[in-house]
Amino acid sequence: MRIAFFGDVVGRSGRQVLSEELPGLREALALDFVVVNAENAAGGFGITEKTAVELFDAGADVLTLGNHSFDQSEALSYIEREPRLLRPVNYPEGTAPGRGSSLYDLPDGRRILVINVMLRLFMEALDDPFRRINEELDACPLGQVADAILVDAHGEATSEKTALGVYCDGRASLVVGTHTHVPTADWRILPGGTAYQTDAGMCGDYDSVIGMDKEEPVNRFVTHMRSSRFSAASGEATACGLFVETDDRTGLAARVEPIRIGGVLSQARPESTN
Amino acid sequence: MRIAFFGDVVGRSGRQVLSEELPGLREALALDFVVVNAENAAGGFGITEKTAVELFDAGADVLTLGNHSFDQSEALSYIEREPRLLRPVNYPEGTAPGRGSSLYDLPDGRRILVINVMLRLFMEALDDPFRRINEELDACPLGQVADAILVDAHGEATSEKTALGVYCDGRASLVVGTHTHVPTADWRILPGGTAYQTDAGMCGDYDSVIGMDKEEPVNRFVTHMRSSRFSAASGEATACGLFVETDDRTGLAARVEPIRIGGVLSQARPESTN
Amino acid sequence: MRIAFFGDVVGRSGRQVLSEELPGLREALALDFVVVNAENAAGGFGITEKTAVELFDAGADVLTLGNHSFDQSEALSYIEREPRLLRPVNYPEGTAPGRGSSLYDLPDGRRILVINVMLRLFMEALDDPFRRINEELDACPLGQVADAILVDAHGEATSEKTALGVYCDGRASLVVGTHTHVPTADWRILPGGTAYQTDAGMCGDYDSVIGMDKEEPVNRFVTHMRSSRFSAASGEATACGLFVETDDRTGLAARVEPIRIGGVLSQARPESTN
Amino acid sequence: MRIAFFGDVVGRSGRQVLSEELPGLREALALDFVVVNAENAAGGFGITEKTAVELFDAGADVLTLGNHSFDQSEALSYIEREPRLLRPVNYPEGTAPGRGSSLYDLPDGRRILVINVMLRLFMEALDDPFRRINEELDACPLGQVADAILVDAHGEATSEKTALGVYCDGRASLVVGTHTHVPTADWRILPGGTAYQTDAGMCGDYDSVIGMDKEEPVNRFVTHMRSSRFSAASGEATACGLFVETDDRTGLAARVEPIRIGGVLSQARPESTN
Ligand SMILES: [Fe+2]
Ligand SMILES: [Fe+2]
Ligand SMILES: [Fe+2]
Ligand SMILES: [Fe+2]
Ligand SMILES: [Fe+2]
Ligand SMILES: [Fe+2]
Ligand SMILES: [Fe+2]
Ligand SMILES: [Fe+2]
Repeated sequence: MRIAFFGDVVGRSGRQVLSEELPGLREALALDFVVVNAENAAGGFGITEKTAVELFDAGADVLTLGNHSFDQSEALSYIEREPRLLRPVNYPEGTAPGRGSSLYDLPDGRRILVINVMLRLFMEALDDPFRRINEELDACPLGQVADAILVDAHGEATSEKTALGVYCDGRASLVVGTHTHVPTADWRILPGGTAYQTDAGMCGDYDSVIGMDKEEPVNRFVTHMRSSRFSAASGEATACGLFVETDDRTGLAARVEPIRIGGVLSQARPESTN
Repeated sequence: MRIAFFGDVVGRSGRQVLSEELPGLREALALDFVVVNAENAAGGFGITEKTAVELFDAGADVLTLGNHSFDQSEALSYIEREPRLLRPVNYPEGTAPGRGSSLYDLPDGRRILVINVMLRLFMEALDDPFRRINEELDACPLGQVADAILVDAHGEATSEKTALGVYCDGRASLVVGTHTHVPTADWRILPGGTAYQTDAGMCGDYDSVIGMDKEEPVNRFVTHMRSSRFSAASGEATACGLFVETDDRTGLAARVEPIRIGGVLSQARPESTN
Repeated sequence: MRIAFFGDVVGRSGRQVLSEELPGLREALALDFVVVNAENAAGGFGITEKTAVELFDAGADVLTLGNHSFDQSEALSYIEREPRLLRPVNYPEGTAPGRGSSLYDLPDGRRILVINVMLRLFMEALDDPFRRINEELDACPLGQVADAILVDAHGEATSEKTALGVYCDGRASLVVGTHTHVPTADWRILPGGTAYQTDAGMCGDYDSVIGMDKEEPVNRFVTHMRSSRFSAASGEATACGLFVETDDRTGLAARVEPIRIGGVLSQARPESTN
Repeated sequence: MRIAFFGDVVGRSGRQVLSEELPGLREALALDFVVVNAENAAGGFGITEKTAVELFDAGADVLTLGNHSFDQSEALSYIEREPRLLRPVNYPEGTAPGRGSSLYDLPDGRRILVINVMLRLFMEALDDPFRRINEELDACPLGQVADAILVDAHGEATSEKTALGVYCDGRASLVVGTHTHVPTADWRILPGGTAYQTDAGMCGDYDSVIGMDKEEPVNRFVTHMRSSRFSAASGEATACGLFVETDDRTGLAARVEPIRIGGVLSQARPESTN
């Protein structure tokens, strides 16, 4: 299966780069499935139906979220009727609306399990992400029930994200981090066959402080006072993510490559043919 | 000036990859100055004279540190007599031994200011890193007193590191993060001419959890119990860092490229000639 | 039922004040059951069989623990064979040895459920304390299965501790906090009948920094460097805790009063007769 | 000098209890000076001119603040023209409006220095509170320039607050904590003569979660979702604080006693004559 994943879409410029680039990429890379973290799609804070639809129209098959899932209150009801939208799976049972994982059918009959999970170091303490992931993977074994499994690990600390990758190694196709809004350069296939990257980076304007106009974040670090609200930076965005090709017999990763298209970052585009 | 910076050296395998690769790189890239973060050089925790000498012998001109600066108590006295060893500049005045910044002379008379600073988000609260850096940069203006200025920003949060980069933009040659042990793929030259990368990554074995043997870190996340001590992973390391070329008239960056040599990460090696 | 609870015993002087005062208090207050948090009993860090036995000999019926439960590795096996020793109930299932709650029989046939739970704000993230407590209280209803229920909520933040008290109100006899080593003056009976105090305070020498010799803690805050290890302060301790009398028909609290005996704090001793 | 200090006033019921009780207390205790922490006076979040005036009218001589200082934007200008309002002294120089310490004249010519400082453990990192306090105390020696010195240490962790008390011992009349909204029962005079209490507690309705209506705080801990805004609890408040009498020859404390008047907490009222 040929899968692309893109990190946190930040505001209008983040949505725009995907609208412009994703259709071409889907074709060039013959993508079977595209997952996009959209927790910052609506002006930097949360998601609305309108911004979600923009991303689906651009070619996203599934959208994942994170600590900003419900910044926009309309997401509370929208997620109930949109099965392609996932919030972290480890909210306490019976609390958050919507779902945190789902098995999706491809037109050709193959199936991919997508899981969104939130980590806990330096973040709010949801339920144990390791145990929840373990339950999910046990319930839907890779190569048997699911042809591919993608885990979006929304977290701050590199140690916890890497530990989760190691923990899932051999049982998922891809474990990829989100939340820090900076892509890491450690894409690789772990010894057990799981593709891994600590953070996918954001789809947003990198001439910013993690997607926000530079002035106010710097001001807050310097003065510890608020001058204004944060606003999403509006310069040209870089679409950051990665491309994974799995072996359809095992579900494990055969190839992983970074994607960085547009904006001020160095460009990376997987070769169209392999 | 042609400068290389390498992130946190972790244990023996981290020292080894630099011993093997740095001499060749110095020559191939015609490097004028090499700075290495060595806070984890001694078995993963701190630095000793012996491990520091290994890195100087490999071709490091200056070593920087971080939150692990004084894990090995011999570093308390060693740093007092080794001017090429820097600890974070923002310890409260009159507390930590050694120094946090220094202006170094190259054989050809050019001079480079190196500053090690520790950030505060999710970390211990040393003195204000923004104000201390500002004082340092004011006291030693780029292009006037210093031909190049390198800032090693040892920190956890991408927001704070990026804000510091933005804050220094135009006044330093390079602001590069350390501490997370994962290289980021956001190397770039900021609008004011300062080269920036959120984290250099570690020089260590990436088939690990941020440099440590995988079993115990995973065990602690899963059980919240300690089974054993952390020990530095001993597989083949990747030397992670970046190469910066500055304009000698201004001290600003003309070129920045990633370095990832050896081990399990995808390889990146700046071209020898430019 | 007449119950006394004492907060974190810190080192030798903490054990000593209980050895001297608890026998007399048991008699004067006609205590039916005594619970003592002992996570710092062994030199300030964890518990050993020897220090536990000292506390049982002094008159403790049950000992609870906290984040320091297993600082002394012998506690890993000791807790397996000592049913009167409890560690936090919300370790992930199947990880920590021992148990986190237990129903104890009094000589007269009445029964008391004791639960030790660890909170999460500013602390390590164990399993959800609210859900675990809810399960415990559901499984052993107050006034039906248990004649009294005591919850030791080991936590840092006043908000989380108070919220847990409110959450348990009407279903437990007493919710009392530990861990901060400072007694609070907010003992009261909540509207539903549960006695509550945010922190019991430590049994230790208050001429200290939360039980440790003053010099090194102050030094660390001032210099951010380590000069020496922390050592438990050895001056005369104050035994801090509270006395609760429950209504045997309902299990709810009828009376709650503070205990502060010995050392430098203002003294509080419940009246012998009521 | 006869001084009273009251902790964080929370909303209308907090202001009301002071309006009702403070005039009588000033007379009964022959108070020379009254300081009130007012960071939550305006509906639980920050301060306005109107709510400040209510507290001055009730008998407060000086108001201190904390992390909520500027929740209400009108405080940014109000503090510039109201010398009796103090925000934390350790904002970086040249950032926050207003001042963090001031020397006040009593009608009889005696003078009291009041300092508001914010601690850093589990809080935002302002400038080093220990160094700033040291500078303040050096600039205005107790018993020489100031007849009394009061330090409001706004912080979360008991260790840091106690360490600050120890650090100031002998150089201030009173070091009292605020911010946790729960009074501690550890009022005492330290060996050097400084009165100390880890937290004064709030002036607010204790049938709440630290001053807020109970439902939403509990809901957030249980569900990790937001149902509504926090609103200040409106039941009868307890005025929490302490009374200190200093020796006018030295400025050190001769007597310290708790104050808890009104509401659901156990009552404490210093004797009128001594
Ligand atoms: Fe995000
Ligand atoms: Fe996020
Ligand atoms: Fe490091
Ligand atoms: Fe570090
Ligand atoms: Fe403790
Ligand atoms: Fe504890
Ligand atoms: Fe407050
Ligand atoms: Fe506060």
